Amino acid sequence: MDTTKKTIILFSGDFDRVMAALIIANGAAAMGDDVTIFCTFWGLNILRKTGKVPQNGGSKKTTLQKMFGGMMPKGTKKLGLSKMNMVGMGAPMMRKATKAAGGMSLEELFDSALEQDVHFVACTLSMDILGFKKEELIDGIEFEGVAAYLGHADEANVNLFI
Amino acid sequence: MDTTKKTIILFSGDFDRVMAALIIANGAAAMGDDVTIFCTFWGLNILRKTGKVPQNGGSKKTTLQKMFGGMMPKGTKKLGLSKMNMVGMGAPMMRKATKAAGGMSLEELFDSALEQDVHFVACTLSMDILGFKKEELIDGIEFEGVAAYLGHADEANVNLFI
Amino acid sequence: MDTTKKTIILFSGDFDRVMAALIIANGAAAMGDDVTIFCTFWGLNILRKTGKVPQNGGSKKTTLQKMFGGMMPKGTKKLGLSKMNMVGMGAPMMRKATKAAGGMSLEELFDSALEQDVHFVACTLSMDILGFKKEELIDGIEFEGVAAYLGHADEANVNLFI
Repeated sequence: MDTTKKTIILFSGDFDRVMAALIIANGAAAMGDDVTIFCTFWGLNILRKTGKVPQNGGSKKTTLQKMFGGMMPKGTKKLGLSKMNMVGMGAPMMRKATKAAGGMSLEELFDSALEQDVHFVACTLSMDILGFKKEELIDGIEFEGVAAYLGHADEANVNLFI
Repeated sequence: MDTTKKTIILFSGDFDRVMAALIIANGAAAMGDDVTIFCTFWGLNILRKTGKVPQNGGSKKTTLQKMFGGMMPKGTKKLGLSKMNMVGMGAPMMRKATKAAGGMSLEELFDSALEQDVHFVACTLSMDILGFKKEELIDGIEFEGVAAYLGHADEANVNLFI
Repeated sequence: MDTTKKTIILFSGDFDRVMAALIIANGAAAMGDDVTIFCTFWGLNILRKTGKVPQNGGSKKTTLQKMFGGMMPKGTKKLGLSKMNMVGMGAPMMRKATKAAGGMSLEELFDSALEQDVHFVACTLSMDILGFKKEELIDGIEFEGVAAYLGHADEANVNLFI
């Protein structure tokens, strides 16, 4: 099989951009490609566990990090739309329209990507800045910095920034 | 001639991002490249016919789809700026400044791209979700899904997400 | 040394997106890559000199160009965050969190990129539209149009639009 590699930097945490990234990743994985989604800045949100996570020791969060953590959504369910968000109404509308069209939900796209062995990577520098600990992120992901991303990108034939 | 291929995913419907996409596409086409612009989500707006389009039979639009259709701009003329939109004043300012600088208008860039055989592709999944029918989009475009996009991208040496 | 080429179109002038672009550029340059950052539209802001710049003769700015010039930030210090900007509080918060995490500031990233010979290119068409003169932009940069960008991209193996 002629497998090629794809990388996506997921910088955005907007519902619609995350959806686009996951649709591309699932499509490529279905065609036998090796896909890496490098989650950085707001893109890290999709890797956050929902609910309270007990701190596993380690350094305490700063006030700023607690603020970022408190304001940024956890997981895919609370993401807002990049356009026409209309006081939070946009994403639910898009969800409903997607369901009516028989499309996969954001959560189904995410689970499907994991099942198809899409590599989700948490950007360690963004984690340090925003104060996200490994135990606050979901299982089955990798932790890498920009050098590792560039290594993947050098081997890939399609590299997108979303 | 040594023609290479370029693809652009046009996710955004912002005036300035669409302008950037069309400038790159025109430049590449002028250099003999085969260019595909895959319009998805808000990028579909530039492919919409202006004015009312009689429905060609087929399934009726849902209320949600009518709402999306009513709120999203038709064609390039109503697009807003991504930054400094200032109650809709941003795009007209950018248009005026572009004209004064002797640059091509968004409509001229779009027509030029069509004349240079840039392929405009409407993402069929986005169409299904937002409820856009083929007869509501302009003539001379193609209709494809993510697998077809990936096929183009695999053959291209520059792939951008805008 | 096996040097490869990377290009980034920096369209955005958002603090966080500029930061992402500079982190990638510095990482690639540190690995021996030849990196070009093509600054267009709002991305031009990072190349603007701070303070008043005496006009070097040439054509006078139009009122519109003066308005764009007056509203758009000069240099990296005044950029706002793309998300959670909260009346301008977002970028200072991100700066503080970055410093606390031992990360490089936006200005350090920019200086480091220049020292590592990352090529900063000002898009001449954007300059014409927004009315930015060469003397208003910092020294040590290049001035090119879309054709030159495409030339770089054709030689590169990673091309991002940020």
